[in-house]
Amino acid sequence: MSASSERGLTHVDAAGAARMVDVSAKDVTARSATAVGAVVTTTEVIGLLQSGGLPKGDALAVARLAGIMGAKKTPDIIPLCHPIALHGVTVDLTPGVDRVEISVTTRTADRTGVEMEALTAVAAAGLALIDMIKAVDPAASLDGVRVTRKLGGKTGEWVRS
Amino acid sequence: MSASSERGLTHVDAAGAARMVDVSAKDVTARSATAVGAVVTTTEVIGLLQSGGLPKGDALAVARLAGIMGAKKTPDIIPLCHPIALHGVTVDLTPGVDRVEISVTTRTADRTGVEMEALTAVAAAGLALIDMIKAVDPAASLDGVRVTRKLGGKTGEWVRS
Amino acid sequence: MSASSERGLTHVDAAGAARMVDVSAKDVTARSATAVGAVVTTTEVIGLLQSGGLPKGDALAVARLAGIMGAKKTPDIIPLCHPIALHGVTVDLTPGVDRVEISVTTRTADRTGVEMEALTAVAAAGLALIDMIKAVDPAASLDGVRVTRKLGGKTGEWVRS
Amino acid sequence: MSASSERGLTHVDAAGAARMVDVSAKDVTARSATAVGAVVTTTEVIGLLQSGGLPKGDALAVARLAGIMGAKKTPDIIPLCHPIALHGVTVDLTPGVDRVEISVTTRTADRTGVEMEALTAVAAAGLALIDMIKAVDPAASLDGVRVTRKLGGKTGEWVRS
Amino acid sequence: MSASSERGLTHVDAAGAARMVDVSAKDVTARSATAVGAVVTTTEVIGLLQSGGLPKGDALAVARLAGIMGAKKTPDIIPLCHPIALHGVTVDLTPGVDRVEISVTTRTADRTGVEMEALTAVAAAGLALIDMIKAVDPAASLDGVRVTRKLGGKTGEWVRS
Amino acid sequence: MSASSERGLTHVDAAGAARMVDVSAKDVTARSATAVGAVVTTTEVIGLLQSGGLPKGDALAVARLAGIMGAKKTPDIIPLCHPIALHGVTVDLTPGVDRVEISVTTRTADRTGVEMEALTAVAAAGLALIDMIKAVDPAASLDGVRVTRKLGGKTGEWVRS
Repeated sequence: MSASSERGLTHVDAAGAARMVDVSAKDVTARSATAVGAVVTTTEVIGLLQSGGLPKGDALAVARLAGIMGAKKTPDIIPLCHPIALHGVTVDLTPGVDRVEISVTTRTADRTGVEMEALTAVAAAGLALIDMIKAVDPAASLDGVRVTRKLGGKTGEWVRS
Repeated sequence: MSASSERGLTHVDAAGAARMVDVSAKDVTARSATAVGAVVTTTEVIGLLQSGGLPKGDALAVARLAGIMGAKKTPDIIPLCHPIALHGVTVDLTPGVDRVEISVTTRTADRTGVEMEALTAVAAAGLALIDMIKAVDPAASLDGVRVTRKLGGKTGEWVRS
Repeated sequence: MSASSERGLTHVDAAGAARMVDVSAKDVTARSATAVGAVVTTTEVIGLLQSGGLPKGDALAVARLAGIMGAKKTPDIIPLCHPIALHGVTVDLTPGVDRVEISVTTRTADRTGVEMEALTAVAAAGLALIDMIKAVDPAASLDGVRVTRKLGGKTGEWVRS
Repeated sequence: MSASSERGLTHVDAAGAARMVDVSAKDVTARSATAVGAVVTTTEVIGLLQSGGLPKGDALAVARLAGIMGAKKTPDIIPLCHPIALHGVTVDLTPGVDRVEISVTTRTADRTGVEMEALTAVAAAGLALIDMIKAVDPAASLDGVRVTRKLGGKTGEWVRS
Repeated sequence: MSASSERGLTHVDAAGAARMVDVSAKDVTARSATAVGAVVTTTEVIGLLQSGGLPKGDALAVARLAGIMGAKKTPDIIPLCHPIALHGVTVDLTPGVDRVEISVTTRTADRTGVEMEALTAVAAAGLALIDMIKAVDPAASLDGVRVTRKLGGKTGEWVRS
Repeated sequence: MSASSERGLTHVDAAGAARMVDVSAKDVTARSATAVGAVVTTTEVIGLLQSGGLPKGDALAVARLAGIMGAKKTPDIIPLCHPIALHGVTVDLTPGVDRVEISVTTRTADRTGVEMEALTAVAAAGLALIDMIKAVDPAASLDGVRVTRKLGGKTGEWVRS
């Protein structure tokens, strides 16, 4: 058996039909995941979002909240994702010269990992930010949405190299 | 009045408080938007998703559906977005050597544009794809989520340069 | 052009890809639809649901509410359905000897019909009823969920023959 | 016909069955509503929420966002409410000595009023605030949630006396 | 005490008021349920859904996904259902001469059974299929939605006779 | 360290950023909460809701259902609330001379308390009632929404004094 058939698409069966994979036999363990991404925009927009390094008004709070609430909506947005206990979510937004870096860490003690929750939170936070700045910068983009680290479960720790 | 105050963050008021902007006085016109993005992965994954250029099983269908349903969930995911009539959504997925290009077009006849719906659909389709391939490629990323064209409303046509 | 290509599956394109069909060019007209179905159960259950022809407690109200709220959730449950203005919903439940007949009428003034809303309401009402009686009759079934009449739009009136 | 039968419960029919009232024949007009309420807490909590009259951190932003998103969820929370176009929402939070006053204005151009959207936004903002302060003040309460003014539709202006 | 009072409607209390039954004292055990149903249509529609026994395009995938996502939405659709961990869902669609048979198996390790999740998935898959074929066959119906087998919990195995 | 810094706003971090607090290390214990509130209206409305002390039609059932379903929607309505297993909900509605008293008890065996679920259920039941009576009494208000008792978790029993 080749490596690629051993490592196939677990979410479709042998006939190609989509399914929600049965995880009832997996252990309940502490698990966490960190995902990152960035909204790439203009220096003008960064100036509108903060002043002297401090946030101005609710704009970053809106993105942070969209991230936290997006993490909770993950099983509704990602068709084959399991509904899962979500025990903690933090969303960090770091404005740079012409971009806002987004980093989300999700935690649970359940039967599957929380990478999709972290990724969905990054995307929701990024899109909420784009929504607020699109009148000023219609060309803003969301880039580099990816998992950087996950912990727990059968595979233990995985760190993006 | 400076250019930057004329083009401020419309979703927060003068005191910085978030709000859903009143659009009741805007015209109902035909509007559309196209957004794109890409899931960057490995050639092995592309081989699992298709065979001889044809899709294998439901994997691409899952991503397409996630995109269409994601477009409908936009006002639930993006805090300050208006709930809007959504009259059409198409999601195109084009596998390349080591990536899947995503392009979404959304259409409406309503009082606000549908860029956020197109962007949310791209993100949902991309994340659904990452969910299906993450056991094979935990390092897959979603990149370049951005609007490429919008039509209708007061500003008429805007094309990404 | 053959009859079958003229009357193909409108929700998939020529390549077989699912899409939300663009209805922005369709007229806003008054539309309504009626759908029916039945929960088939036992005379014992009918006795528990009513007494002397009158409802006992909230059981039928729960099913009626599930129907009305189910109609509103249609675009969330049916992947390719348009989110639509829903202007009226009535759910009629008629207990018989060993069954409860369900009839739902939905109304709108919008660009697409409301058959799916009526069908979804019938299914939600029927399943909510089964949920309440399943401890007494685990074999209850939901049968004959179908549209009986629709009005409005390009095709005018359609009545099940 | 008596006054009380003329002014009955419109959301139930003559037999007492709940229904979503048909509004398809009502006019599309500009409508707005204002609702208010207050979270009653302690001076210690007010101190934690702000400093020198300025908000500290995201706490008030969270309540404001909960209000705006709650307004959008109204048809999901209130069983017999119509899904409606919502064109604008503002949430004002005014900390006092031992309470936070909440005032929400909602706007639409549709066939029914937006009082329920304003009331739901007040409740959601108030409950979100209670959630954040409950570790410090488990006895906080939400009081006086009521409509103070509505405009538009057949009845024109109504102001709470 | 008669058999029928011993086996009353558990979802309403002695006064007839609806409630969500307290299950906190029930054991967490592995549980599964299988439910079936069928969309009854025409041979022409079956021809459009497949060709030479193979699915054509995304139509069956849409119904399968609607089923899986419908299972996750069960506590939102069925008013008195508990929100539950859902650990696995498979949806099998088998086209026949003039019908598509639907079979869904749901699995969990939790305090209540997953019959309602299986039934809701069957209904959602069936209605999604009807949505896609209704332009060709407006008379299609969903029939025989019922539980055929459940496993786990206090009652152990139950098989439809 | 002062009392007020020891008992700060747990839902925001030291920099004021909102977060979903990590509860994965908290014990799974049986927990319950009771919250109350009241809809204050007119004697005429109370007469429409019941006759001779008995409910007329579905109106109180609608409010009860809105409460139960509202409890399930709590993590969707309250931004920083954890999605939680909800094991039981009862909603008691007691009509008085010119008001309807609402009392909700929620139960779980999970890592966090269920006060917010009880409060949200009271608010949803109260608002659903106001929705049904607003054509007769546009001045109805929801008052005194507050927790009266909670049990379980690290703090054990808390009773409102």
